[in-house]
Amino acid sequence: MSENFFEKRKSIQQIEESEDLAPKFDKDGLIPVVTTDFKSGEVLMQGYMNKDSFIKTITLGEAVYYSRSRKTLWHKGKTSGFIQKIKEILIDDDQDCVWLKVEVVGGASCHVGYRSCFYRRIPLGKSETNSKIILKFTEKEKVFNPKKIYGNTENPTKL
Amino acid sequence: MSENFFEKRKSIQQIEESEDLAPKFDKDGLIPVVTTDFKSGEVLMQGYMNKDSFIKTITLGEAVYYSRSRKTLWHKGKTSGFIQKIKEILIDDDQDCVWLKVEVVGGASCHVGYRSCFYRRIPLGKSETNSKIILKFTEKEKVFNPKKIYGNTENPTKL
Repeated sequence: MSENFFEKRKSIQQIEESEDLAPKFDKDGLIPVVTTDFKSGEVLMQGYMNKDSFIKTITLGEAVYYSRSRKTLWHKGKTSGFIQKIKEILIDDDQDCVWLKVEVVGGASCHVGYRSCFYRRIPLGKSETNSKIILKFTEKEKVFNPKKIYGNTENPTKL
Repeated sequence: MSENFFEKRKSIQQIEESEDLAPKFDKDGLIPVVTTDFKSGEVLMQGYMNKDSFIKTITLGEAVYYSRSRKTLWHKGKTSGFIQKIKEILIDDDQDCVWLKVEVVGGASCHVGYRSCFYRRIPLGKSETNSKIILKFTEKEKVFNPKKIYGNTENPTKL
């Protein structure tokens, strides 16, 4: 099915300048996905899709990723309720990255409990020989309590 | 040098909830980077950094990526003049993705000539058995002429 859904990559001209959807999946069969909040523009998360999850995302209108830790399709929000409704999907010049603009039901996208996964800032201008970098938290309060939502589900963060 | 710059990944708690910068580089030594326009919030591009380019980005305050096609550090804008000045750097929950908010000197980030690399929209709701997907161009005019800027430099887009 997925072979008919996407076009074959034939030329640089086709990939960059045509109306063909000819995405490039990496050696693991994945394409990176950047997900932003449709209204605020904030980057909520970065994930991956395989061919099947990409097709499901387009046809369903909700974000379906591929979970590299669980090695399975991951319909975002199915456990937590925080479904990402797709407002717009864009693809980049060489078609090896996808941008999803979404509206998040419930307002949270991060399994740690914050609105965005990007809740810490790296200070700029540190010298290479300076002392330790101290991250600054940009979100003060969690939107939800992960223990209540996920219970004993395994944490997706890996060492 | 890079060993002292970043913290070792010790625990889920440290990675998710502490002020330690303990990024995860993949098996190729890379971490994905999402780059947005500081003012408009638009996603301009998605790239990769290795340890050295990550350190250079933080210390220099300009985006330095790792080019997977050229297998070398890539100080964005050195050829084209479209330097990305870093306004803010954020890292995600499990510290395996970086978000750069930048101001682009000259206003273009895409080697094809557009402002953003994401200049085509994928139409939503296509049925899996339907006819071909037709991408829609969201940018009408190029910001620059790639042939004038890059000359005969090899195109980074690969089949």
